[in-house]
Amino acid sequence: MDADALIEWALENAISESESPPGPPLLANAIRHAVFPGGARVRPQLCLAVAAACNAGSKSDLLLSAGAGAALELLHCASLVHDDLPCFDGADMRRGKPSVHVSFGEPIALLTGDALIVMAFSTLAKACASSPATLARLVPIVASAVGAPHGIVAGQAWESEAEVDTQTYHRAKTGALFIGAAEAGAASVDADPAPWRRLGAYLGDAYQVADDLRDMMMDSETLGKPVGQDAKCARPNAANELGPRGAMAKLNNLIEEAAGSVPECEGAPALRKLVHAQASRLIPAGVARALA
Amino acid sequence: MDADALIEWALENAISESESPPGPPLLANAIRHAVFPGGARVRPQLCLAVAAACNAGSKSDLLLSAGAGAALELLHCASLVHDDLPCFDGADMRRGKPSVHVSFGEPIALLTGDALIVMAFSTLAKACASSPATLARLVPIVASAVGAPHGIVAGQAWESEAEVDTQTYHRAKTGALFIGAAEAGAASVDADPAPWRRLGAYLGDAYQVADDLRDMMMDSETLGKPVGQDAKCARPNAANELGPRGAMAKLNNLIEEAAGSVPECEGAPALRKLVHAQASRLIPAGVARALA
Repeated sequence: MDADALIEWALENAISESESPPGPPLLANAIRHAVFPGGARVRPQLCLAVAAACNAGSKSDLLLSAGAGAALELLHCASLVHDDLPCFDGADMRRGKPSVHVSFGEPIALLTGDALIVMAFSTLAKACASSPATLARLVPIVASAVGAPHGIVAGQAWESEAEVDTQTYHRAKTGALFIGAAEAGAASVDADPAPWRRLGAYLGDAYQVADDLRDMMMDSETLGKPVGQDAKCARPNAANELGPRGAMAKLNNLIEEAAGSVPECEGAPALRKLVHAQASRLIPAGVARALA
Repeated sequence: MDADALIEWALENAISESESPPGPPLLANAIRHAVFPGGARVRPQLCLAVAAACNAGSKSDLLLSAGAGAALELLHCASLVHDDLPCFDGADMRRGKPSVHVSFGEPIALLTGDALIVMAFSTLAKACASSPATLARLVPIVASAVGAPHGIVAGQAWESEAEVDTQTYHRAKTGALFIGAAEAGAASVDADPAPWRRLGAYLGDAYQVADDLRDMMMDSETLGKPVGQDAKCARPNAANELGPRGAMAKLNNLIEEAAGSVPECEGAPALRKLVHAQASRLIPAGVARALA
């Protein structure tokens, strides 16, 4: 099974688990709507790629990393559902279809996010059923990537503050979950997560700059969600601050830093190649050429 | 340290942890507002009481049960913050002071609930730092009490369905976290959680009936939150269905069932006494006398 298929399988597993015995149908449907079909699944991809670079070979290693990756993706989906609510972005489209609150109403959207956060931790527990020590390493990594004081929830909360340091804001809102994905990939196969932090941080920064560029340069139909949201919400945006060419240069630089940060290990060359391949998917070729 | 002090200490510990290094100040203040000062802390009390009945004696046992109790209380507080939001109850008071969304705005209230859910799991991980096997037992218990398909999030989601079975609704919305508290108390000291499910279920049912009675019989100043919410939101309410006297009789019956369900063990007599003592705090003496 390749990484894409493994991630979808782990997500389907997690969600089926939450449907048995059947609970309230609207919530169950909204949870599926929030998770399938997915975006690029970049966080679980990163988690699995780091696990593979750390020499995850056995079937149990693979299943464990896939569970950790699925947990990260569920948390990412939860944050999208809550971010789209009227009290934040009020976005009516996500991944090319109506956002959860538009299809299911605000109460169910709020509960969908809550249920997905809880599901992330039960997914970790299930994946680690025969390896409690791995669970003990993964829960703090994942919780720290999402909660207060510097996970994605805190990142979102900086938007309510009068004074915000842009780097602190972006590092929490986007970077934390990438750092968590890199660390979780290593921890899921009992490797030391510390050397992988920088890779997650650079990729998180790169992803944020790419997101800023897409928000400025693309139309909502191609992107599948509203554009110009940062300007509308007066949020820091690298493409506004540096200009589109400056932002594109920064993005390329971050990708080089990311590839350069991969610790020496057997799987390092393959992982560096993957970093470059993923990077080229962040910005449509036409936009990248225009800004070269 | 008695149970009350131990619970407050564990909660303070969990929250301090989320404040270091400092994150966005409004979120940090809102998290404190949501957790302190607390209500009766009945769920962690139940967790600690079951742990004590299972013969939790050592200091490490106590700290572990307190951590599990704190995690349950954080999840309860999260559910209150989200329930009070305008898209659910729109309650402007909670525990005698403005609810979180009134004091801090909707975005921060939503994020406060999210952060508390995440914090519950990091608190479990911290409490179990030297006992990964206990963490592996606790995470599924706690997640199941809160998430889909039959935890408190699912309970709340039943309110969006056209057809609801009252018992399924109440068991999920209130009972699940009591069952989780009883099971977690046993699991936190490595005892079998299964024999404790019934105690949690009866206490959850009793608590729901008491809540229904308070919503009908008391004024909002004494209660510290709006009353008549069930009638306003057309939600099932035992005091409406059975009349106040019928509901009071049902409450007393559930308390007897709860005390009777305590498995035989060294701490059983003390726990049965505690069940009766806690029960007498559920309904103000004046109301109970009037309905006797």
